[in-house]
Amino acid sequence: MAERLYLYDTTLRDGQQTQGVQFSTSEKIQIAEALDALGVDYIEGGWPGANPTDSEFFDAAPKTTAVMTAFGMTKRAGRSAENDDVLAGVMNAGTRAVCLVGKSHDYHVTQALGITLDENLENIRASVAHIVAQGREALFDAEHFFDGYKDNPGYALAACRAALEAGARWVVLCDTNGGALPAEVGRIVGDVIAAGLPGDHLAIHTHNDTENAVACSLAAVDAGARQIQGTLNGLGERCGNANLTTLIPTLLLKEPYASQFDIGVSMEALAGMTRVSRMLDDILNRVPTRQAAYVGASAFAHKAGLHASAILKDPSTYEHIEPGLVGNDRVIPMSNQAGQSNLRKRLSDAGLVVEAGNPALGTILERIKQRESDGYSYDTAQASFELLARAELGQMPAFFEVKRYKVTVERRKNKYNRMVSLSEAVVVVKVDGEKRLSVSESLDETGSDRGPVNALAKALRKDLGRYSKTLDDMRLVDFKVRITQGGTEAVTRVIIDSEDGRGRRWSTVGVSANIIDASFEALLDAIRWKLIRDTGETDAV
Amino acid sequence: MAERLYLYDTTLRDGQQTQGVQFSTSEKIQIAEALDALGVDYIEGGWPGANPTDSEFFDAAPKTTAVMTAFGMTKRAGRSAENDDVLAGVMNAGTRAVCLVGKSHDYHVTQALGITLDENLENIRASVAHIVAQGREALFDAEHFFDGYKDNPGYALAACRAALEAGARWVVLCDTNGGALPAEVGRIVGDVIAAGLPGDHLAIHTHNDTENAVACSLAAVDAGARQIQGTLNGLGERCGNANLTTLIPTLLLKEPYASQFDIGVSMEALAGMTRVSRMLDDILNRVPTRQAAYVGASAFAHKAGLHASAILKDPSTYEHIEPGLVGNDRVIPMSNQAGQSNLRKRLSDAGLVVEAGNPALGTILERIKQRESDGYSYDTAQASFELLARAELGQMPAFFEVKRYKVTVERRKNKYNRMVSLSEAVVVVKVDGEKRLSVSESLDETGSDRGPVNALAKALRKDLGRYSKTLDDMRLVDFKVRITQGGTEAVTRVIIDSEDGRGRRWSTVGVSANIIDASFEALLDAIRWKLIRDTGETDAV
Repeated sequence: MAERLYLYDTTLRDGQQTQGVQFSTSEKIQIAEALDALGVDYIEGGWPGANPTDSEFFDAAPKTTAVMTAFGMTKRAGRSAENDDVLAGVMNAGTRAVCLVGKSHDYHVTQALGITLDENLENIRASVAHIVAQGREALFDAEHFFDGYKDNPGYALAACRAALEAGARWVVLCDTNGGALPAEVGRIVGDVIAAGLPGDHLAIHTHNDTENAVACSLAAVDAGARQIQGTLNGLGERCGNANLTTLIPTLLLKEPYASQFDIGVSMEALAGMTRVSRMLDDILNRVPTRQAAYVGASAFAHKAGLHASAILKDPSTYEHIEPGLVGNDRVIPMSNQAGQSNLRKRLSDAGLVVEAGNPALGTILERIKQRESDGYSYDTAQASFELLARAELGQMPAFFEVKRYKVTVERRKNKYNRMVSLSEAVVVVKVDGEKRLSVSESLDETGSDRGPVNALAKALRKDLGRYSKTLDDMRLVDFKVRITQGGTEAVTRVIIDSEDGRGRRWSTVGVSANIIDASFEALLDAIRWKLIRDTGETDAV
Repeated sequence: MAERLYLYDTTLRDGQQTQGVQFSTSEKIQIAEALDALGVDYIEGGWPGANPTDSEFFDAAPKTTAVMTAFGMTKRAGRSAENDDVLAGVMNAGTRAVCLVGKSHDYHVTQALGITLDENLENIRASVAHIVAQGREALFDAEHFFDGYKDNPGYALAACRAALEAGARWVVLCDTNGGALPAEVGRIVGDVIAAGLPGDHLAIHTHNDTENAVACSLAAVDAGARQIQGTLNGLGERCGNANLTTLIPTLLLKEPYASQFDIGVSMEALAGMTRVSRMLDDILNRVPTRQAAYVGASAFAHKAGLHASAILKDPSTYEHIEPGLVGNDRVIPMSNQAGQSNLRKRLSDAGLVVEAGNPALGTILERIKQRESDGYSYDTAQASFELLARAELGQMPAFFEVKRYKVTVERRKNKYNRMVSLSEAVVVVKVDGEKRLSVSESLDETGSDRGPVNALAKALRKDLGRYSKTLDDMRLVDFKVRITQGGTEAVTRVIIDSEDGRGRRWSTVGVSANIIDASFEALLDAIRWKLIRDTGETDAV
């Protein structure tokens, strides 16, 4: 019979301590619902009373299976728990559980709080008893526990015992500064249990300041702790908290954890892990970390030629888990090391079935190699890769021809004597034998100039004859620029991500010494890929 | 007497397996020089023969104190080491050490290579003996060692023994798939040493697929291994390799490692760690990871109010190390009181002495805060920061005024019926009361167009009256573009690095929805900073 291991999520509280992160109430609700669907046991929603949006969130919090938890601190000295207004603010959120941080490091008690060691123990005891008396589940966050234990183990343990004796369900051993290493955490947690504190009442809360937050959490569980605190995508103060997005797959898929423990997350929910991680990045408007464990876009990307060819025979040769288990995908990028078998696999992913031995395969590889040495990158620009292959296979319609274009950026004073800029683009195309000339400027709804690439994109799409309608639901969602050599005389690589009304998303690439040319090339590819998908035309003219 | 622990860097080889990473030869040289200055013991430069830029790098490799190492694979079956052309390509690089990857997992021997287990042992033995016979140091990369050991410990050990008996200085225990967990790695390395393989001949090579690459490396060292392989910033295949940028500070600053081991990195070199990490991001044009351990911009950022006020009393309360030890800085939100003393420190670094209490300090902080929320970044653009501060302090001369500018990019067929582009810029400035109009196109010595930013830079500098001569020795050495929000309608941040004849190098920033405007703003700042330095004018007009 597997033992229960509990997961406590603090994305909404400690995660919000990340520099630059401030969730709105509706974002907090969205995240709480995703966490509940995932199956975590506790959701720490914030510090009610200390932060206006935290209070708002508790008022509007969704009904969850997970235990909603309010965070606060132990009562201050010189007043009763009942009369501490900060504690009252926390209790007023009405959550099923309350987690209070308090001191367990003697130095902080005397230096930061300026009270006696006994007064601090009494504050812990009285605060926890108050929570329990009101019928709530109590957790005690033992701040700086590991540093405290190293300086004065007796006092650190006394602080934890005070909380347990007053009825705390969990004592949370916090490595607040993030400086403890895994072996040390394992040893100290073992000592704490040997000193009589039960492991199934101990939680571990770590930070990633030495890149060991996940390992420290596992070391604590190995030693007997039975609750892990962490955040989605490892958000959190400084270098972040223990990353639940990584810990959950490890606990479900890896031994000894998979056999030893039950956690609240099912295998079905695990398959949504990548989606949950990306949702959080979307909320934060962050580019997802490609190299993230399990859920990163590169987590199952096999670039080395030797690896890529072995993967085709047997994925387990270079993959520690099946990517689909966490909702992720295998990627075999078209790098200059890849061989023909990788190429055929990649082409068939794009719907292009090519027989082994087709001489076009060699030509395509040669062209990719040449273009990558010119600065192109087909690792990410899958749609441009497809167009390049189609051209070699004779499956690339012309659609239209660009005869010329011209872009102007002008900055000068307007009639109100303010400096303003204006971008204007003229594009001349030939569609079905007919020449069409379009001009666009680049003003957004507020009348501000959005620059030459925007003007060019508008002018290019403005009149493409019978193709214009197809492009109505297409929009550019990201635009990435990289200089592949130094100086203003560098080669510029532009990657454009596009999206359409059917939820398709595709990436194209352009390269030139001229940033406008590079952007235009990527724009053209984006439009051509969309036209292939939607017109069904695939024959070269 | 502390024991020697060796560091082996594979940024240039395994690091290049990162999706989207392809170093040029000159970038490889720059990185190798930085690694050597840092003090790593080995630099793995690539696989000569397999990859043209790797071969080029070894031809041009800098003289280093670190042992330059070529990577390759053990000889194939059915031919001698002397007659294996792939191995010959590796040897021809002429490096002091050679590291060959080979199989140690029986499944891979029979399935991937399709040879007998004994043939594989013989391939290892003969290849290593060949390296040693040529007077080189030999390393054997035991691929899939941990998976292999779990399936067939006897064979995995036999592969390692074959290498050691043939004279390998190091056997590298590789967790190729990145699936092993720290406790397991520690236990297996302990077993290997107990089986008679000496720990001071064992290296550890881990990947970050479960976010445990650093912890697995430490676990192997705890068990007795004496070489760690990793990469700067944790670059590498899939989720990356063990991050030396994290491991080096941990080994130097944390117990038991600090007392137990000598590594080749000095405390002085450690203080350059943050700079080395940022240099690599600059080469890759990546946004540095704010949350990176030790070197991230947020690694010592104290957002929580309670933490920030405690930090002011005693930094050790919420910091596991002193940030300056790794060349990083403490960050305390500008709004609170510590902001002003930090600002005065930064101003005096720029030669601007400002008395405490000067009301301009508050105004400067406000403007920085506002501009950073608009997308500016003064972390790297120190010269733009100085100009902003000078403006508030009344120490910013006008020099000249830009009345207007206009840039055109045109792409069309030339007289030879080939598509070509031409960029042209007109800039109108007022210097000493006189209006001056300049026009430039953007052709390089080969007659190719280099784009609108180049044309604009030329036109702007062409006629600035009495200031023109001062700018003669100034040139733009780097140009970085980042989109800080998605879409073509995003805000663009341009950072320009400039250099002059005296070897000064400075960075400026511009932000706009229009990439041309953003570039122009950064260009203007670059010129103004240079004029302040060289004209001695510092008074606002």
